[in-house]
Amino acid sequence: MPASESAAAQFAKGLEGVVAGETSICSIEQGGLYYRGYEIHDLAASATFEDVAYLLLVGQKPSAGELSAFKQELVAERAIPDAVISFLRSVGPALKAGTAVPMDVLRTGVSILGHLDKDCQDNSPRANQAKARRLLAKVPTILGHMQSVIDGRDLVEPGTGGDPRLDHAGNLLYLMTGKKPNAQYARCIDVSLILYAEHEFNASTFTSRVIAGTLADMHGAVCGGISALKGPLHGGANEAAMEMLKEIRVATDAGKDTVESWMQRAFETRRKLMGFGHRVYKNGDHRAPILNRLGRDIAKAQGPDSLRWFQIGDEVEKIMLRDKKIHPNVDFPCGMTYYVMGIPVPQYTPIFVASRVSGWCAHVIEQHANNRLIRPLSIYTGSPPRKWNA
Amino acid sequence: MPASESAAAQFAKGLEGVVAGETSICSIEQGGLYYRGYEIHDLAASATFEDVAYLLLVGQKPSAGELSAFKQELVAERAIPDAVISFLRSVGPALKAGTAVPMDVLRTGVSILGHLDKDCQDNSPRANQAKARRLLAKVPTILGHMQSVIDGRDLVEPGTGGDPRLDHAGNLLYLMTGKKPNAQYARCIDVSLILYAEHEFNASTFTSRVIAGTLADMHGAVCGGISALKGPLHGGANEAAMEMLKEIRVATDAGKDTVESWMQRAFETRRKLMGFGHRVYKNGDHRAPILNRLGRDIAKAQGPDSLRWFQIGDEVEKIMLRDKKIHPNVDFPCGMTYYVMGIPVPQYTPIFVASRVSGWCAHVIEQHANNRLIRPLSIYTGSPPRKWNA
Repeated sequence: MPASESAAAQFAKGLEGVVAGETSICSIEQGGLYYRGYEIHDLAASATFEDVAYLLLVGQKPSAGELSAFKQELVAERAIPDAVISFLRSVGPALKAGTAVPMDVLRTGVSILGHLDKDCQDNSPRANQAKARRLLAKVPTILGHMQSVIDGRDLVEPGTGGDPRLDHAGNLLYLMTGKKPNAQYARCIDVSLILYAEHEFNASTFTSRVIAGTLADMHGAVCGGISALKGPLHGGANEAAMEMLKEIRVATDAGKDTVESWMQRAFETRRKLMGFGHRVYKNGDHRAPILNRLGRDIAKAQGPDSLRWFQIGDEVEKIMLRDKKIHPNVDFPCGMTYYVMGIPVPQYTPIFVASRVSGWCAHVIEQHANNRLIRPLSIYTGSPPRKWNA
Repeated sequence: MPASESAAAQFAKGLEGVVAGETSICSIEQGGLYYRGYEIHDLAASATFEDVAYLLLVGQKPSAGELSAFKQELVAERAIPDAVISFLRSVGPALKAGTAVPMDVLRTGVSILGHLDKDCQDNSPRANQAKARRLLAKVPTILGHMQSVIDGRDLVEPGTGGDPRLDHAGNLLYLMTGKKPNAQYARCIDVSLILYAEHEFNASTFTSRVIAGTLADMHGAVCGGISALKGPLHGGANEAAMEMLKEIRVATDAGKDTVESWMQRAFETRRKLMGFGHRVYKNGDHRAPILNRLGRDIAKAQGPDSLRWFQIGDEVEKIMLRDKKIHPNVDFPCGMTYYVMGIPVPQYTPIFVASRVSGWCAHVIEQHANNRLIRPLSIYTGSPPRKWNA
């Protein structure tokens, strides 16, 4: 057997099925998703995002006193530095031109936060915990201010970065819309943040761990996480799924297509359909039905026009399962849910960041606490040895 | 055997020895380092950095005409947008306060370049090649302008970003110092850029590939690469090694210590000594002696004070090999070499970026051309299942 053939047998493309390390933060089983031992349906029903962020960062459910102190810390850290506000004001033309997208602007905003964080170059557990809280508090403010710039609205109380009486999810909605949030919408966002907070060695978290494994700092690791989450094969799928549904609805409303005919054509042209399938889940993503139900409740209350998104979604899901045996992942109902709440599509993945930053930071803390450089090998498939001046 | 024990046996911490994919860009053998089949001593002796960057990005050695066109493209792309210049001017206080370091500022600069790049959201081979050239051309300008801000000097011709008659390495030195570069120094920088350009699945390149594997864009992948390269267990080692040598020299010049006594104390206190050892090379890093010789030649010409750094370095290397059986890696001579040329220490790793961006971009192009999401698994070591309201 030639060397290349034997070598080719030794690796799994995309590290599929390969264990890259240990974690005490999260476990994904075919039977359930657990954050530090708590099952995701239990958390979605009984906890808030602040509970979950504390749980992920500290390792234990907070007591009432710990939760109250944690929430106060977050509120106190919501304001963002003037340098980030100036940057957000300056990026409007690039956002309008479409060269800049919110995920990239968020990455730059977090990168600038690093320059101004007094603990930026300190990887100690104390500094990492403090930086994690600051990042968690400030990301929603960056999103909100960015949306205000896009909408040409005044920034919402840039001094304090939101209404201190509002919890994390409500504050995020308030900052993004400039309006006091509806309680049902705020709880729906809260649950979506719980569902998105953590997911073991997914591509963005793994990116953050590879960065932290060089003993680089938390802000750098989070910038890398944001870069990876943007991709449509990862967090970007919630935006891509909604864009697909909009396309289907235009075609079906015009009577040009049925969902069935649109889907069959997509299969024939080998179009990649976003929001379906998952590297780890084989029988469906535990998070998807939770968000589907919450979003559907909102759509029902709004009326038939909103509900139509979920009806199209149901048909798409049925056909995917029937013809491809593939289940929706959490990004599929997320797209519809955020859409009926009126959130602009390019902010779906940034909202995912506002949640997942808790998981990334927990993994950076875990990586730094018991570090080993993450440095795999590759198989060489290129030119044999040759001479420059041959 | 309990499940956790059996699972623990199945993974290599830090993915040590694990093959994560295929590449035709680079191979590291115990007997030699090859970029697309050309051995590193051959490249260091016969090629320029522009030759090597073209080789990495395109896959073949350029013809005379191709090289000339490539160099013209780079010169034409050296200028950076006003938004990046404004950002660099604004970051002076944070650089002086030490919360911002040049590697982080460079990451933000590249992130802003993404917002303004017309091809940012396009992952096609054409767009990726164009973006790679722009990144390659603009990173030295960001470094140079940043150093001018730090030094309180006028920016060097911000309109064109350097002297168009100067090659990549000479231009980098010119932008950073404001002075016409000495030819020997420029060639030494050129060779260091060749040595640093590419190194298979190192931590920063692997970070770039994980990001690109979600189908995120090249600027995001390079931001992640910069974040990872910063760590002292990776590119940051050239700065850390020089800081260590400065500490040894202060102690030995004061007669307080010999190199031997300083080293023995470092061993006793389990201090991690930077610039030594390598995950892949077992018998020494092929790049280290090349740079050691070039730097030593410059030091010799300067006189005994400069040469003393290399004499201390020789002693440190000898003791490390004798007592720990560990060889220096390329970052060890790099520190001394850049130091005798008068380059500020916090710019050593950013200069590494000015070179490695060629390798990162080549890997992003390769990843996008034959993509599979990079998503490993982890072993769960945390709490058993528990109830939120128990």
